[in-house]
Amino acid sequence: MISFLNGEFVPADRAVVSVLDRGFLYGDGLFETLLVSNARPFRWDQHWQRLEQGASFLGIEAPFPAQAARQAINRLIHENQTREALARITLSRGVGPRGYSPRGANSPTFAITLHSAPPAPDPTRPVRWKLQTASFRLNHQDLLAQFKTANKLAQVLARAEVEADGADEALLLNDRDQVVEAATGNLFWVEDGVVLTPPIEGILPGVTRQAVLELCAATGITTREDSPDLARLQHSDGVFISLSSFGVVPAESINGRPCRLSSCSDRLLADYLELVRRETA
Amino acid sequence: MISFLNGEFVPADRAVVSVLDRGFLYGDGLFETLLVSNARPFRWDQHWQRLEQGASFLGIEAPFPAQAARQAINRLIHENQTREALARITLSRGVGPRGYSPRGANSPTFAITLHSAPPAPDPTRPVRWKLQTASFRLNHQDLLAQFKTANKLAQVLARAEVEADGADEALLLNDRDQVVEAATGNLFWVEDGVVLTPPIEGILPGVTRQAVLELCAATGITTREDSPDLARLQHSDGVFISLSSFGVVPAESINGRPCRLSSCSDRLLADYLELVRRETA
Repeated sequence: MISFLNGEFVPADRAVVSVLDRGFLYGDGLFETLLVSNARPFRWDQHWQRLEQGASFLGIEAPFPAQAARQAINRLIHENQTREALARITLSRGVGPRGYSPRGANSPTFAITLHSAPPAPDPTRPVRWKLQTASFRLNHQDLLAQFKTANKLAQVLARAEVEADGADEALLLNDRDQVVEAATGNLFWVEDGVVLTPPIEGILPGVTRQAVLELCAATGITTREDSPDLARLQHSDGVFISLSSFGVVPAESINGRPCRLSSCSDRLLADYLELVRRETA
Repeated sequence: MISFLNGEFVPADRAVVSVLDRGFLYGDGLFETLLVSNARPFRWDQHWQRLEQGASFLGIEAPFPAQAARQAINRLIHENQTREALARITLSRGVGPRGYSPRGANSPTFAITLHSAPPAPDPTRPVRWKLQTASFRLNHQDLLAQFKTANKLAQVLARAEVEADGADEALLLNDRDQVVEAATGNLFWVEDGVVLTPPIEGILPGVTRQAVLELCAATGITTREDSPDLARLQHSDGVFISLSSFGVVPAESINGRPCRLSSCSDRLLADYLELVRRETA
């Protein structure tokens, strides 16, 4: 697989960074993961905009304008002859003087890699996930949570914890006992035909979350933002997770307690797949 | 400069890791920075023990036993002909399957790099730092804070913030308005001849912090753990930071307000330098 690294198209064994790259030293960077369908990146502009906002917050200058990065990913898709894939864009602060201070670190690292796409979901037989709450708590005031930074140990350890118990995905609570997101995606639940999701406070504003809200609006499903505790999710009419790679994944259970399956999530998954098809046609 | 990487001694241009290394992707790793004096690492055992504890918490298996890593750093010091230096040990989870889950990532990356030592401090004319509180807040319940993980964006951004105002180092507060540590070291202050420091709750147990407490005990200085607010530090008889690279650095000011200079910190710096000399003789 060919990757894009700092302006060059390189084979895997040359897609390397210095052990002194601040991304490797401190997680001093950002990333985006996006779906490539029909040889086109889905919602490129929104992913790129989030990356730019994060870079601005961290004080990292994106080394390529959006247009050049878009051309790079298109060529990467072409060179690797992959029509269906996941693309990962990584931007780190690169190598600089020793120590936490970012002063003098002015050569960011920029990489795009392609990865096998998961099997396309089938809305008539959706995969369902066993969800489990992780013991790690997010800080409801965390300024970094709104960006997709390379500081993701909480998510890594949350996944490890719940997978050890046989679950598929971790639900993350904040320090106010509110369930705010999943490790890899945003949280939705259904109550009396209304689709609810936590507000963007101390969590990542997912591109797929936004797509799901648009799809609800387009089909007349009422949406509302609210902050649920665990019991409210467990007693709802259905829970689902939104994420780039799968679109929408309904919950089979939360902490071992079976969840209802809302027809909303099947409908939204089908609509999402159609949206991807239309926008990447 | 020669570095040690996964069992090999390599020049800088070969001290590289894959862009898919989880250290680079997620900050999924740990590190230690230690002083090399007289061609010997200072307090190797304590740094290594902290690394092992962190690795155990993250579920990363250290690829070398302590003895082999110790031999590697000794040879690195010899090959680079550096008697005075800083050494950085990095352990990441290495490359694995795509996604947050650490499942299947079983080839950790282990690197040791040497860096120029800062000028040896002169206890008769100590460098003093302008300290400034950063707006980022630490979570007092953060389980990860006790380990030196590669998730250090809070520290990076704290340094950037205070340096933009001309300060030398950032003071970090937690979500309870307690000043708990500096970005690069532990916090101490002096009241009526007693040396105080925050307890190890939600902060890193510094190797130099421990050394300072030992030196106080050896010289009959009373020590106590407590959690100060900003005003208490500003009205104390002196504030200083402990860190591997400098030992002890007294504060010149906090948020622009001049600090008293306690004779304690001069004494402790001299004692620390003597301790380093003795243990690396």
